[in-house]
Amino acid sequence: MPKRFEVDYLVSCDENETIHEKALAIALEQSVELPSSVINDAIRFRSTGHIEKIESSQHTNHHWVTISYPVDNFGHDLTQFLNTLIGNSSLKPGIQVINVDWQSIFNRFPGPSFGVDGIRANLGIKKRPLACTAIKPLGFNSHELADLCYHFAKGGIDIIKDDHGIADQKWAPFSERVKICTEAIRKGNQDSGNQAHYYPNITTRPDRLIERYHQAVEAGADGVLLCPHLTGLEMMAVLTSESPKLPIMAHPAFSGTFVVSQTGFSHSFMFGSLWRAFGADFVIYPNNGGRFSFTLDECIGINQALLDPQTPFARAFPTPGGGMQCDNVNQWIDCYGNDIVILMGGSLYRSPHGIECASQKLRETLESAL
Amino acid sequence: MPKRFEVDYLVSCDENETIHEKALAIALEQSVELPSSVINDAIRFRSTGHIEKIESSQHTNHHWVTISYPVDNFGHDLTQFLNTLIGNSSLKPGIQVINVDWQSIFNRFPGPSFGVDGIRANLGIKKRPLACTAIKPLGFNSHELADLCYHFAKGGIDIIKDDHGIADQKWAPFSERVKICTEAIRKGNQDSGNQAHYYPNITTRPDRLIERYHQAVEAGADGVLLCPHLTGLEMMAVLTSESPKLPIMAHPAFSGTFVVSQTGFSHSFMFGSLWRAFGADFVIYPNNGGRFSFTLDECIGINQALLDPQTPFARAFPTPGGGMQCDNVNQWIDCYGNDIVILMGGSLYRSPHGIECASQKLRETLESAL
Repeated sequence: MPKRFEVDYLVSCDENETIHEKALAIALEQSVELPSSVINDAIRFRSTGHIEKIESSQHTNHHWVTISYPVDNFGHDLTQFLNTLIGNSSLKPGIQVINVDWQSIFNRFPGPSFGVDGIRANLGIKKRPLACTAIKPLGFNSHELADLCYHFAKGGIDIIKDDHGIADQKWAPFSERVKICTEAIRKGNQDSGNQAHYYPNITTRPDRLIERYHQAVEAGADGVLLCPHLTGLEMMAVLTSESPKLPIMAHPAFSGTFVVSQTGFSHSFMFGSLWRAFGADFVIYPNNGGRFSFTLDECIGINQALLDPQTPFARAFPTPGGGMQCDNVNQWIDCYGNDIVILMGGSLYRSPHGIECASQKLRETLESAL
Repeated sequence: MPKRFEVDYLVSCDENETIHEKALAIALEQSVELPSSVINDAIRFRSTGHIEKIESSQHTNHHWVTISYPVDNFGHDLTQFLNTLIGNSSLKPGIQVINVDWQSIFNRFPGPSFGVDGIRANLGIKKRPLACTAIKPLGFNSHELADLCYHFAKGGIDIIKDDHGIADQKWAPFSERVKICTEAIRKGNQDSGNQAHYYPNITTRPDRLIERYHQAVEAGADGVLLCPHLTGLEMMAVLTSESPKLPIMAHPAFSGTFVVSQTGFSHSFMFGSLWRAFGADFVIYPNNGGRFSFTLDECIGINQALLDPQTPFARAFPTPGGGMQCDNVNQWIDCYGNDIVILMGGSLYRSPHGIECASQKLRETLESAL
């Protein structure tokens, strides 16, 4: 019997189809892509998706369908793994991946290189939540961005990342920026006794990503920011095998359409399970109550999936951002727990007391959250 | 004044926001990612998105918003171009890119290397629609797949591609498969006088894609199949600069969530304009009436965008697939015109007369469509 792995889908039907028809359509579409009538028994056994379970809500158009696929359908090709989950079915309404049984395939995925424990050891922070911010706007030159870095570091931000829109534009070319910003952060650390780290944005064309990763290493970066849905998600997993290893902070740009409708991935599966399996040490997502649209339950689901000790990968840091202010940070920590990175941007920039002072206040709030 | 390019969005609002607020939020989110109150005039001029126009429907929640961004915000980084269009806004409901003014930026995009005219010259087919099919299922070995190739070629299919789920699995390893299938197609051509071409699926982890492209070249492929949303879309553009050039057939796997909700891209923009700009010679999309959900208007919109002579790129071949049968091909040609590739899979496999005979019948139908 070929080794199989199971995928759970949340499915809704339209008036012209039964759940059994739709489940079978998914199992075939995501494997052999032929009607059942023209596949032989050998193929049905060797490479065809099988329906393992269907459970239907009594009152709503919700059906939970478990389909198993042979592990050899993707082998060690993680891009083909994504294709197996939802390749063609991404074009059909009402098909959402909500879970994968990692136990049977975990050795094919890297998981986070550092994870929560490794990052805490790196930064020397035992228990408190971490503070993160972004340098911006796009259009500032390297010295203007470095000046922000200095004050954020001096104020007590733990991780200072590039804004995800800052790449290699002429105003602040990548290697120059990383070098100057790293120096500014070291200076800010010296002047304050802090230990801020710098994570530049390495997102670029996929075949040059490894080169840019090493440019970041050489220029002194402590970690990297990556938008994995812009580079092809497998590139995140590829980066985890580079040496030296740097922590990877994953950013949701260009990924949102996978979670904003009933087709794609559930929030907890994509930002939680999937990105963790593919090697994210931190997962940035838009926090409830900010300028995006995630519900509190969706955010809590992401956190649980990133931190679930039953999953066979290192735990990854939930990094909610957007709409948080010093005044309500405690409330979020009460809700989410201490293993969290508070990503605060706009409200630090808007502070009438300046970013350094606002950063100090955030840091004090986090210290007192212990 | 920095050179700018314009992007058209179709926007809907919820009850808590006005269209002016939402348009401004897009312009800021997709550029400087800071509130208007904390950016200075230099940044507003240098790198901030500007609202150029807002038109609202009188009767529906539809607003057409044009925003201009400085060209230097992405420079020559096409991954950053995608980020500029919809990076963070992909996480918000009701924001759809429907058009880009390519005229001001077309020299940064490759467009199709061959396009409709180049492909017709390649294949020696002046006017009639082309026939395409896929070899499958996943799980067949290279010889079984090659046997299909032989009969499809002998029957008169013009382009024989791998199914998009067939990659480098153990049953039919990539280089072995391409070599054996290419030989089978040459034999089918010899025995029939046809000129079938073979397009293997090169989709794999992004940093190995160029290597696999050249493996395909060396094994004798006539073109390649690529799922650009699995590899990072810019990789399609990167491949157009490889030598020797092979035609690229783009497949929609893993791209569907961008078009199935009101956030992302319109069908005609993504499958039409965007993929054409990024270098697709053929764009496969699920035809109306098949097992997917595109409307006839959406399909016609894709075709028009791929073939629009006003767009500053070579015209690309619409390649509708799914649900077409020999009996209704003429009706689709009447509707779509002759510059079309008919992608037929399941209905050839299901034919009681066998695939070679079914392919002959399809070819005869296309010959008589002149």
